[in-house]
Amino acid sequence: MTMKGNVLIAQGGGPTAVINQSLAGIVREVRRLSPESRIYGALHGVEGVAKEEFVDLTQVTEANLEAVAATPSAALGSTRVKPKADFCKKMFAVMKAHDIRYFFYIGGNDSSDALLIISEEAAREKYPLKAIHVPKTIDNDLLVTDHTPGYASAARFVAQAFAGLTLDMRALGGVYVGIVMGRHAGFLTAAAAAARRYEGDGPHLLYLPERSFSLESFLADVRRVHEQYGFCVVAVSEGICDASGQPLLLSLVDEVERDAHGNATLSGTGALGDCLSKKLKEGLGVSRVRCDTFGYLQRSFLGCVSPVDAAEAREAGEKAVQFAAFGQEMNGSVTIHRVGDYATAYRLTPLVELAGKTRYMSDSFINEAGNDITPAFLEYVRPLLGKDCPVAARLEAPRIAGRC
Amino acid sequence: MTMKGNVLIAQGGGPTAVINQSLAGIVREVRRLSPESRIYGALHGVEGVAKEEFVDLTQVTEANLEAVAATPSAALGSTRVKPKADFCKKMFAVMKAHDIRYFFYIGGNDSSDALLIISEEAAREKYPLKAIHVPKTIDNDLLVTDHTPGYASAARFVAQAFAGLTLDMRALGGVYVGIVMGRHAGFLTAAAAAARRYEGDGPHLLYLPERSFSLESFLADVRRVHEQYGFCVVAVSEGICDASGQPLLLSLVDEVERDAHGNATLSGTGALGDCLSKKLKEGLGVSRVRCDTFGYLQRSFLGCVSPVDAAEAREAGEKAVQFAAFGQEMNGSVTIHRVGDYATAYRLTPLVELAGKTRYMSDSFINEAGNDITPAFLEYVRPLLGKDCPVAARLEAPRIAGRC
Repeated sequence: MTMKGNVLIAQGGGPTAVINQSLAGIVREVRRLSPESRIYGALHGVEGVAKEEFVDLTQVTEANLEAVAATPSAALGSTRVKPKADFCKKMFAVMKAHDIRYFFYIGGNDSSDALLIISEEAAREKYPLKAIHVPKTIDNDLLVTDHTPGYASAARFVAQAFAGLTLDMRALGGVYVGIVMGRHAGFLTAAAAAARRYEGDGPHLLYLPERSFSLESFLADVRRVHEQYGFCVVAVSEGICDASGQPLLLSLVDEVERDAHGNATLSGTGALGDCLSKKLKEGLGVSRVRCDTFGYLQRSFLGCVSPVDAAEAREAGEKAVQFAAFGQEMNGSVTIHRVGDYATAYRLTPLVELAGKTRYMSDSFINEAGNDITPAFLEYVRPLLGKDCPVAARLEAPRIAGRC
Repeated sequence: MTMKGNVLIAQGGGPTAVINQSLAGIVREVRRLSPESRIYGALHGVEGVAKEEFVDLTQVTEANLEAVAATPSAALGSTRVKPKADFCKKMFAVMKAHDIRYFFYIGGNDSSDALLIISEEAAREKYPLKAIHVPKTIDNDLLVTDHTPGYASAARFVAQAFAGLTLDMRALGGVYVGIVMGRHAGFLTAAAAAARRYEGDGPHLLYLPERSFSLESFLADVRRVHEQYGFCVVAVSEGICDASGQPLLLSLVDEVERDAHGNATLSGTGALGDCLSKKLKEGLGVSRVRCDTFGYLQRSFLGCVSPVDAAEAREAGEKAVQFAAFGQEMNGSVTIHRVGDYATAYRLTPLVELAGKTRYMSDSFINEAGNDITPAFLEYVRPLLGKDCPVAARLEAPRIAGRC
């Protein structure tokens, strides 16, 4: 037996389409490597640990586990709570009482930050706890890892959406703006470009939080594209900022909601889209301007999963257990490394290297004008979407000469 | 040879996921029954006819035709133009010049109305034109037909979205409101209920344009559900009206855009959602209130197609050609009739019976309180979504007793 004591799994932060694949990966690998360990699931992340609200994952059937793995959103419930010292002490008391020696936390930046605090508190309290972070976030903004589980499925949703929206606008004309999630990093918005297939396909313009947004350039860009193609499709990140670095959305809404980690809520309102829409109508004189805010659909839509993403999320869970069982490290995050075209390897990276930090799009992924991505980004993102990602076809029919 | 002269196909109104299946059905059936007929495709609906902007569908390969059939949105382009007498005269001159004797117009209520005008003008001008309407609309609001091609795929998108959103809200709590398309009829909003699987699954409340919307009842309903389950998911139609019959959205936006058919544009703005969101935060004291407006995603998303819908849209196109080739009627709409559980038959219904008219949800589909659908509606809608429609699974794990 390589694992001593019981195992705890929890999920934190915003759900993804494949977060339960990681859950299933952990459960199955613990069952294989350490059949005597009891597997605890905490309800609503660290909250459930402090409150001693556990379910027994040892008693989940394989059939149910696999059905849940294919279901989006955190099956154990999630939380945005940031644990402090007192909270951690409560957690250790609970863990001790249940002989929990392994804590697998499936989450994004904030969850990795929470886990680092817990791991450091555990060391201080001399509680022998292996704290392993299994990454997930549709934002793809974790350091070290090539990409995060959950990103590819959300990216695929955004790409499939923009493929369809381009066709819709091609059929009826006008200007379309789609607001995509991404607080600080533009990865998800950039994925809209994966929808392009033919010359002239949208999105024609992309605006990312990594470059400051100028309304003037935006209007000029849209005018140019609209004149060229008769329609224009634009992908805008919800996190775009003005020249002072202030998110545009914050100047548009009355009250800003913040979570325990200090993040302003940018989603769940159509304010940014409606504002850009109004500016376009006024500035361009185009009557048909449509704007959608993708909101929560892009992270939880049932039935839009990249098979690459699902497999990697599963494997990240399995590797997490192996690192805990066979490694000496007391904490770490499972990071994915691109070792071929396309192939990956998994490593355990110390939590201090990435916890609470944010990765941005590399400069090589953004064009010079700051209104598009580069071919390098397409090379990066396309293998992640899966080979079965649908593509749109254009009708190829010759024109018929007029007779009237 | 059963068909004399050439054939014209056009697409009108809002695109759907399967409108090109009907296009492919018409093209292939004309090729089979009347290989000598040239098949014209008008660009942008009736506009393309008047402007003599045609492509030669006779010269489309089978491979391209099938790839286009599987692609959402109108491959020939669309229009919202309503033809008047002068416009029709121009169209006949063009049709005559090209010996066009069959006009297949794939569209919704407004397109059927346009086609009736054209058919009546043709009779007046003694121009022998068979005008066949092939239905499509995500709104499902055409009379006579059991349902319209395009509805089922959009319904499936809405159901899959709400299945995921329910899981997202279950994981993090709060109130979610999703605004769904549907100007006058609630069919698409009602489809959100098809996402329910387990007791307590959302959407817990549905508000349809067929019942007047009261903010007071809405707040009371949401409060009740939120207290019961700890979260609440609501589906709201963009077309909900106050007691005076005025769409709520119209009182919220400064300027209303109208098309040639007099329809106000209700989509493409987050105003209704943001307003309801604000009322919920103020009225309920729930901090986590999220609202998304589904907008154009629900009608054009690439890769969310009901196989039933695709097959029926294809067959409606094929039947349209057969009715034109073998029938005596000079005009009609292909209507779908439910003749079994689940089986359908196709008929040709005279255009006057449905052109420009709107079907609403039957009373038997809406509960007495006016905030939910009935089991009868689920029986109606579920066979349309296809047997491969994904379902969400809940984790089945027993609670672990506390020790602290």
